[in-house]
Parts: sequence; structure tokens; C-alpha cells
Amino acid sequence: MMPRRLSVLAGSGALVSHVVEAALAAGDVVQVVGFAPQPERQGVPLAAGSLTNPAAAIAAIVAFKATHVVLAGALMISDRDREALAGFAGGAPGAAQGDAALSSVTASIEKFSGAKVIGVHEVAAGILADAGQIAGRLPTDAELAAARQGLAAAREVGRLDLGQAVVVAGRRVVAAEDVGGTDELLVRVAAHRAAGRIGNGTGPLVLAKAAKPQQPLYVDLPAIGPDTIANAATAGIEVIAVEAGRALVLDRPSLVAAAERHGIAVIGLSIDG
Amino acid sequence: MMPRRLSVLAGSGALVSHVVEAALAAGDVVQVVGFAPQPERQGVPLAAGSLTNPAAAIAAIVAFKATHVVLAGALMISDRDREALAGFAGGAPGAAQGDAALSSVTASIEKFSGAKVIGVHEVAAGILADAGQIAGRLPTDAELAAARQGLAAAREVGRLDLGQAVVVAGRRVVAAEDVGGTDELLVRVAAHRAAGRIGNGTGPLVLAKAAKPQQPLYVDLPAIGPDTIANAATAGIEVIAVEAGRALVLDRPSLVAAAERHGIAVIGLSIDG
Repeated sequence: MMPRRLSVLAGSGALVSHVVEAALAAGDVVQVVGFAPQPERQGVPLAAGSLTNPAAAIAAIVAFKATHVVLAGALMISDRDREALAGFAGGAPGAAQGDAALSSVTASIEKFSGAKVIGVHEVAAGILADAGQIAGRLPTDAELAAARQGLAAAREVGRLDLGQAVVVAGRRVVAAEDVGGTDELLVRVAAHRAAGRIGNGTGPLVLAKAAKPQQPLYVDLPAIGPDTIANAATAGIEVIAVEAGRALVLDRPSLVAAAERHGIAVIGLSIDG
Repeated sequence: MMPRRLSVLAGSGALVSHVVEAALAAGDVVQVVGFAPQPERQGVPLAAGSLTNPAAAIAAIVAFKATHVVLAGALMISDRDREALAGFAGGAPGAAQGDAALSSVTASIEKFSGAKVIGVHEVAAGILADAGQIAGRLPTDAELAAARQGLAAAREVGRLDLGQAVVVAGRRVVAAEDVGGTDELLVRVAAHRAAGRIGNGTGPLVLAKAAKPQQPLYVDLPAIGPDTIANAATAGIEVIAVEAGRALVLDRPSLVAAAERHGIAVIGLSIDG
């Protein structure tokens, strides 16, 4: 099999290095196009990406003769950047679209570069959450019920293109992720708990993360990692539930150790049954 | 017509005094049952309410021989209180229900007290938002489009029983109200804007508030007042849209003056067309 020539369109966070290493281990020839600051990586050329000038990234991909492109890592995309990207993707000018709407950007990448856009799970095997226990203790029946409600709510919040996560207290959705991301959501939940608004009942606090139903598998899947566990513990979260097959588990050994340390149950569930 | 004997189950905020004054002006005999600290009001007896002991409030209503009950003002209801209220309302014990689920509490109030629960708009005439311009300048077409998207999203957020408000930037839902309420939502939006995540495009920032579709008209309608305008201005909001006929406009003269001062368009819209 020909080795892939893989351009990694890279944001911030641990996922980028994980994907680069997995690709190199698989024999791929790898380039990073950085949309956020990137470390030097031996044998991996680095090009500069800019959201306001997508054509420059396309040129870098073409110059590298990439056969495949993967998007990895978190990006902060301002309204102005979104308006520029919407134009690049052939949308209406002046429309600051949400993340799911920006999925059409990948079609433009394929059209202009000739490379195929693939998902991080096609590069880093084993990164997708399975159904069942992922880390830590087993959940109770009440926790499972709250987790199922949370995942259904997370999908609705995703349908609005608002975020991919919610927190449930007992039978009640008490907060949803927004453009600030999961870590800020957990800080907010900790504040609600400190204010006495949630968390003093018998019902569990559950963090649930699900993919946006309208998004393809190769863009911005919800992810959890060791930091998620630590921040969740600080917020008083007892269970973390992710959508099986449509969420990423980063740095699994550290995540498992953190879940064990904090007594948190981490599970994968399918939403529809 | 017999004057009503009206028990006002009172939380915090300006709405309580507004309702008490409107009732007195209409010739009602008024009692306040305070679930949050209340000022002395001449000629209005004050009883102490407690969420963890709903029976005491019922006893006060019965002792007053109330013919009608109205719920007014904001309440912070902890998970433990919700579990107690769910039991009072005949729900499953241990279930910390959301606000809409607690609507069944009003049925228990009627059953145990014999009084009829009515809405604040049945006491304070003119408090419901009409369709059309409410205050400030007229919105642009782009602002109207964003407002319609926002109201539809606010209703979905309400269906989850999470909150009654969202903020839209351009075509994108960027934040939703949670158990922290609208003022905290606006503080959060201001922070997102300061971080460069939103607000630097050509699309407008819109605050939209809609009632939860499953809630009756006599419980916890979304409200705006002069403070909402001031906090929205700080967050960079250019338009405030509320659901016509299902939202409260508090202290209208001050709200109109504040909207004028900040150049904010305040409008009422029906969601379905």
C-alpha cells in the first residue's frame, strides 16, 4: 500500500500530537498546517494556516502533494473568521455560521486541494469511545438514567449548533456547553454548585457529551481526556457519559488513572437505545 | 363583584411589588407569602414561606381564606428543594425536576388550599409583551432574521427545561441561559466577546427570550426589565426579542428610557410566524 501523504490541519490541544504520532507510526508522510501555535516535530514540516486566508492553507496542502487531510484540535473561530469561511465554503456572505454549518468547508478543501478529508479515528485507531465502561467505577441505575437523559439533551443542544455537552442534576438539565467549551462549562457548574443552586440533592451530577447530529464524523467530534476528568471532579460531577462511536477518548491511560483517582464512572452509550 | 382575596407567593425582584400594587389598585385583599426576603407593605400581611415545607405555605393561604393565588418573582430552588417539591406535587421521590415539571406544584396548591392559581398578567394588566415594537429603535431586516432564529432556539432550550433565553451572533446560537438566569448569561456573553469568540463580524448580537412550550401561563414567564437592557448593552447586544403574549415587560417606562439610551431595539414576535 502506498503510504499516505497526510496534511494535519491543526488547532490546539493534545489531539494534534496524538494524531501526528499515530500517522508516523502507520508509515504516513506527515505535514502540519498550524492554525494555532505548534511545537517543532522532527521530520514533520510545518506550514502556517490562517482562518482569514483559507487559500494559503490550500496552497500549502497542494505544495505538499497531500493525498489525505485530517482536521485535529480545537480552534477558536471568531464571527469575522466564520463569515470569511462561509464565503470560502460557498455560503452566503455575512453569515457567521455555527460549527456544523462549517462542515461544508471540508468539501471546499477536497475540491481545491484534490486530497481526501478523513477523520482522526481513521488515523489514530482506538480513539473512538466504545459502548460500555470506559474508565473508573460502574454507574448506578440512577446515574445511568441521568446519563441517558443527558445524552439526549446534549444531542438537542448540538442540533442547535450551540455545543456538544450538558450537565444533568437528577432529572434536570442545569447547564449546556456554549462557545466557551467544556472546561468553561465545568467551571460554571462548579459556581452553580457553590451558590447552592445544584448538587445538594440525592440525584447525581452527570456530564454528557454527544456529537451534533448534523455533523460528519471527520469534523470536531466531542472529546474527553484526563483534564476533563479533573475538571469534572472539581465541579462535583460523578459520571461522564459520551456517545459511543461518535466521541474521542484522548490519552486513555491517564484518563483511566484520573477516573480511578476521582471515583468517577466514565461510560459510552448509544443515544437511541 | 366580590373582591378577590389574593395570596402572592413571592420570590425576589421587582415583579412582586408590581403585582401587589396592581392587586391593591384593583381592590383585592392581598397577603404575601414570602419565599425570599420581603419589605413591609402597609395593609398587606406577610407570612413566611419555605420550599422545604410547602405545607406551611398552604396553611397560611388557608388561614387567609384566599380565593386566588399568584406566583411572582424569582426563586432559587436547590436540588434538595426540588426533590421535596416533587414529592409535594405527587412526583417520584428523589427526582430533582426542572421548572416546567414543577408546574404540577400549582395543581397541588389548588387541591390543598381550594384557591385558584392565576397568572401575574391576570393581576397586572398590560404586563404581557405585545407583538411589534416595544422600546427603542426599529430592528433591521438582518436583526429580525437573527431574532426569529433566536426565539426558535430559545423555545428548544426551554423544551429541555434548561432556560428561557439564548444569544445569537449572526446565524449562530452562541450561548443559552441556564440555572444562573439571564443576567449571568449576559455576563458570560460579555466575556465571550472580550475573548474575541463572538461579536467582531457583521452579524448582530441578539438576546431572545421565549416561554418553555410545556409551561402554563401562570408560572415563571420570561421577563425583561430596565436591568435587562443595561446588562444587554454591556454585553454588546443590539436587539432584544421576546415571545409576544408569553413574556413579561417590567417597569415599562424605565425600560423604554434605557432602550432609547442604549440604542437597543426591543421587539415582541410570535415564534410560529
